[in-house]
This record gives sequence, structure tokens and C-alpha cells, in this order.
Amino acid sequence: MNGLFITIEGPDGSGKSTQIKKLAEFLQGNSIPFILTREPGGTAVSDRIRSLILDPAHPEMADETEVLLYAASRAQHVKEKIVPALQEGKLVLCDRFVDASVAYQAYGLGIPVEDVTRINRFATGGLKPDRSYLIDVAPEIGRQRMVSRYSGEGLDRIEQKELDYHERVRSGFQKIYEENRERFLLVAGNQTVDEVFDEIIKDIKLLLANRYK
Amino acid sequence: MNGLFITIEGPDGSGKSTQIKKLAEFLQGNSIPFILTREPGGTAVSDRIRSLILDPAHPEMADETEVLLYAASRAQHVKEKIVPALQEGKLVLCDRFVDASVAYQAYGLGIPVEDVTRINRFATGGLKPDRSYLIDVAPEIGRQRMVSRYSGEGLDRIEQKELDYHERVRSGFQKIYEENRERFLLVAGNQTVDEVFDEIIKDIKLLLANRYK
Repeated sequence: MNGLFITIEGPDGSGKSTQIKKLAEFLQGNSIPFILTREPGGTAVSDRIRSLILDPAHPEMADETEVLLYAASRAQHVKEKIVPALQEGKLVLCDRFVDASVAYQAYGLGIPVEDVTRINRFATGGLKPDRSYLIDVAPEIGRQRMVSRYSGEGLDRIEQKELDYHERVRSGFQKIYEENRERFLLVAGNQTVDEVFDEIIKDIKLLLANRYK
Repeated sequence: MNGLFITIEGPDGSGKSTQIKKLAEFLQGNSIPFILTREPGGTAVSDRIRSLILDPAHPEMADETEVLLYAASRAQHVKEKIVPALQEGKLVLCDRFVDASVAYQAYGLGIPVEDVTRINRFATGGLKPDRSYLIDVAPEIGRQRMVSRYSGEGLDRIEQKELDYHERVRSGFQKIYEENRERFLLVAGNQTVDEVFDEIIKDIKLLLANRYK
């Protein structure tokens, strides 16, 4: 596969979506063939799974169910969308991937990291990102941004969980970063939008120079 | 857990549903506390997953997605319904369980048995049936019964697959039986409804005598 597989990870309220939008504009402006996609979701089947995962009407959802639903959505996403795009040589820019499951479900919910990792290896056929950007932000700040965005109402099932869960997720992401430094760039999310973007774009230009020139 | 966990396995058109109905009547008639449930499905979350799995509108569904969706449905079913009923000492009569995933997805679709087994061990927390009845029937006969029931239209995504797939499923079920003889009773499905029921009920009376008396 010739394409470049790039994932953006970070908690809700980290400014991830803004960065992704700016990255997409940059790729478009430079005529780099790419697709922009997100997890969970990204295909018709995955979107149906996504709407079930995030439905606040199901507080009874077991943690194991959640892990398996994310993995199911991902399996479809990888096979139907990500792999074909990479095979066409496109850059794939993906909003969250396996690292998010390990952070939120293993570290956040307390499910063994080994189980989550193994199930996701099955789901992805072992596909790994070439580069992952982790936008790190303190949970209080992320949450504050989310609440002011939605004024407390309309938070989904995951976003409604308590602060110590989000603390575990954050330190989970940091562990994942430590163990996968070769593919990660850690970016401090408490900078301005432009500062964060500068760090990412500098790195992405290097990757592109190596890959597409 | 004090309850008795009984599963009924067999291909579509094996007469499984008729037998389950008769079994339920027997249990009711003898005032044995029980629940009747089925896979995929059995809870609100599982039923939403079931409707996605069986939706003929999604022929693009990847095999890995199917495995993970069945497991997700099962995880919810086990945690929310089966385990609580067993803890209350009830008999749980379940239309299909893990064996069906191993037969249909591993042997039928060609996904490694070890992957399907491991993912389902995660989903069920290792829960195994006390007794499984396998109603064995040749795929041509099962299919004939299904087609005459629905006159060819309205077969779901799984039922529409070709005959050699159903052959692989059948021999898969036979392997599962061979490897788990201690909990299986194999019943020939080409007998009359009453003959099949007699074999099952004789065995179930023994189990009940040992468990509930």
C-alpha cells in the first residue's frame, strides 16, 4: 500500500476537529489526493454502529459490548474505505483509530489492554497508522469546552461520563504515546489553534516530502 | 450460578424453532422457572445489532464485522439477561449461542476458529452451556424447508448464501460436537417432530432430575 495513513487522537474538546478541518484545507490546497474519515463511522454499516454506540438511550450497554461494537465499526471502515484508499496511493486522514479504543475502553473502562488490542488486531488485520498526532489536553479544559459548546445538553453517552474516567483516558493516551513513539507526535493542546496547527503541519510536510516527492 | 444453561443449535430449517416452542411448553407445564431467549438478539441493544446483522441492504458487510457484531450482541445478552437469570436459579433456554458463531463464521466463512473462539470468550466472560442440543439436518433439506416457508423471497442476508457455505457450516457443527461431546446431544433432524422432541425431552428430564430435585 502506497498511501500515507495518518490518525488524529485526542479527547473531546481537544480541538481535534478544528485541526482536521485545517489539515484537509492544506491537503486540498496542495492537490494531495486524500480522504478524510472518522471513527466510529465512515461507512454505511459503521455509521449505523456509531449511532448505536453513542445513543444515550442505552445506559445499560455493557463495556464488552462497547469494545466489540467499536471494533466491528472499525473492521468495516478498514476493509471498505481505508485500505482501498491506501491502495490507490491516497493519504488517509482519520479522526480516531485503534489508539482511541485502547485509551477509552482499556484504560478508561478498565478492560484488559491485551483484550482490546487483540480484538482490534483482528478488526484491522494488523493495519497501523504511519503517523498519529495526539493532541493532549487536561480533562477539565476539554470538558469545559464541550459543555460551553453544547450548554450541558446534548452530550452523548461517552461524553457524559465522569471526570476521573477522562483522567484515566488521558493517562492511557500518554502510555500509548510512550510505547509507540516511533509513529506519534505529541502536541500540547493548550496552545492557540495556529500554534497546534504549525506543529502538525511542519511534521506532515516532512512526511509528504519523503513519501510523495 | 445455580440455573441450567441450555442451548439449541442447528441450521435454518432444522426444526429448531418448533422444538424450542415445545420445550418451553414442557417447562411451563411443569412449573420449572425458565427464560426463553435467542441469538442474535435478546435485549434492546442486541436486537438493534441483530437487525443490522440480518439486514439484506448490507451485502458489503465484511466477515470480520459480522463476527464482531455477533459477539457484541452476545456480550450484552450474557451480561444483561443470561447471567442474571442463571443467578436466580432459572433454566435458560437459548436459541443459538457461541457454537453458532464458530460454525457459521469460522467454519462457514473461513475465519480462523481461534479468532472467533477468543473473541467470544471475551464476549461471554467464558460462560459455557451446561447442555447443547444440535439438530443435524442436510443443507438441501434445511434450505428446501426455508424456501417453501418464504417462497424464496424474504430470506435474510445469511440465509441467501450458497449451498456449499451451508455444507461447511454443517461439517463445522459436527466438528464442534466431536470436540465437546461432554455437553452435546446430537439429534437427527430428519425424524418427525415428535421423535426429535422425545430424544431431547428424555435428556432434559435427566438433567432436571439431577439439578432441581
